Amino acid sequence: MILALAGGVGGAKLAAGLQAALKAPAELLTVVNTGDDFEHLGLRISPDLDTVTYTLSGRANPETGWGLAGETWHFLDALAALGGEDWFRLGDRDLATHVERTRRLRAGETLSRVTSDLSRRLGVPSRIAPMCDERVRTVVETDGGDLPFQEYFVRRACEPAVRGLRFEGAASARMSTAFASALADPALEAVVVCPSNPYLSVDPILAIPGVRGSLVRCAAPVVAVSPIVGGRALKGPAAKIMEELGVEASAAAVADRYRDLLDGFVLDETDRALAGAIESAGAGGRVRVRVRVERTIMHTGEDRTRLAARVLEFARTLREG
Amino acid sequence: MILALAGGVGGAKLAAGLQAALKAPAELLTVVNTGDDFEHLGLRISPDLDTVTYTLSGRANPETGWGLAGETWHFLDALAALGGEDWFRLGDRDLATHVERTRRLRAGETLSRVTSDLSRRLGVPSRIAPMCDERVRTVVETDGGDLPFQEYFVRRACEPAVRGLRFEGAASARMSTAFASALADPALEAVVVCPSNPYLSVDPILAIPGVRGSLVRCAAPVVAVSPIVGGRALKGPAAKIMEELGVEASAAAVADRYRDLLDGFVLDETDRALAGAIESAGAGGRVRVRVRVERTIMHTGEDRTRLAARVLEFARTLREG
Repeated sequence: MILALAGGVGGAKLAAGLQAALKAPAELLTVVNTGDDFEHLGLRISPDLDTVTYTLSGRANPETGWGLAGETWHFLDALAALGGEDWFRLGDRDLATHVERTRRLRAGETLSRVTSDLSRRLGVPSRIAPMCDERVRTVVETDGGDLPFQEYFVRRACEPAVRGLRFEGAASARMSTAFASALADPALEAVVVCPSNPYLSVDPILAIPGVRGSLVRCAAPVVAVSPIVGGRALKGPAAKIMEELGVEASAAAVADRYRDLLDGFVLDETDRALAGAIESAGAGGRVRVRVRVERTIMHTGEDRTRLAARVLEFARTLREG
Repeated sequence: MILALAGGVGGAKLAAGLQAALKAPAELLTVVNTGDDFEHLGLRISPDLDTVTYTLSGRANPETGWGLAGETWHFLDALAALGGEDWFRLGDRDLATHVERTRRLRAGETLSRVTSDLSRRLGVPSRIAPMCDERVRTVVETDGGDLPFQEYFVRRACEPAVRGLRFEGAASARMSTAFASALADPALEAVVVCPSNPYLSVDPILAIPGVRGSLVRCAAPVVAVSPIVGGRALKGPAAKIMEELGVEASAAAVADRYRDLLDGFVLDETDRALAGAIESAGAGGRVRVRVRVERTIMHTGEDRTRLAARVLEFARTLREG
């Protein structure tokens, strides 16, 4: 059993690689951030769950990383003509996911149930679960005041300077059943923290009570793949946010952030020079975190599978010794 | 001022003709049945309002009469793939109308306000109003029990035999402001009961308290155009329902149904032979309802405008005579 923790595009890519690298894809559970979820036009939208689901079903738009390949925008164009809110891009096919999710949630089903059902319908061979079934909402604290996540991320295009983040509802949320079971499963072989934004995508998952402790205690190695390469985020505002929060935008800073729960850290070749410092940092120079250098940039499906296979192999090494 | 009462496709066609025939289209108010409205997939759907709005904006699908021309179905196909309910055909562009209407109604706006705004956005030069702002729901009483309207009309394709109809909520509804104002307006020149289904489309409007009395009392002539031609409905189940209710499916039976409020009745050429009987029926043979014979079948935009012009001219005769 492999447990992957993921946010949006970058995380989904590695999750797709893990799914492809495993002989039995059903052994993979990808647990996804839902702090970005929001209500829009009366619909319950779960952007990261959808990105992961579409990517693992092979339907993601390869150009954007989010949304569906070959999508059309007739609904949104018509909505704009009616004076409706068109700042959040909802494609015609994508809309079906939101409408059906909303209908089922209103009918009393859990987000876990809806997620697993929709992903099965779309032909995903591995398992996907939300981090929790309760409502958690990421609030971005900026110079201009608090912003709901999508307001910051899409409407304001990550422009306001971030001063802090909080995850409303996280303290009273509970890990989803699949998530908690995986963490407690003796068959768990590795936890992979995907190359997602540490602040926006992984922190909300870690904010659910019990997650951090379970990761620290679990017998399986916890391996993170750096989303920062050469001081830059491959996608999204991770580097910008780190700088705004007074943290150096580097793979080393990401390793530090996860240090208490990490066994292994995967660094891009570009950052090879940081490996020694990351391994010997903390605990008076004693090696606490093993570092592996890989080509982490995933352009093709082959890149994903190769990186995933290397991460799994690294975890095996850590497990054995 | 001209007031038209309409349901779906047939009514919308004559309303479009009236709009085209009038020098100042803003003088036309089309009041539309909302008994067919329903909630579906969390959306508030008003099929007759949309048919009238799309027709009067020149955007209706000319093949079906309902929906938008050049519509695409990517949303619905995707919904079907997710196992969602796809029995009610929602096109990608049409969906924007429902999403925006639902959003605005939830925000507390009236259906009248939303309707007039959306129709203006779509470029409709005349005015459109719902019969009322309250929720009225047509229930079809059948051999197999009560059916919500769309369940009967779309899902069951009008197959169950109708034993009766009721309009839940009608007794406590109030005419929409535009409707009540038009009926009380001394400038009202004619009321046109469009060739819509008398049972499913016009009766719900007549069931709103005060409507029937206002039509009987109003100084302007009330003229109906028969939706039954040669014993058949041009579209929809009107003839079938009349037979199931033990009423002869004929233009004469339609005239009888409206007799208490009618001044004029427009009959198709096919039914020319019924004119005398309709004029002399009731009141011991005294002429109560004037009959005009016209070509009422509207294939083209020209047909609509010509019929509308003849109806307006007929009303003028009745007013002056």
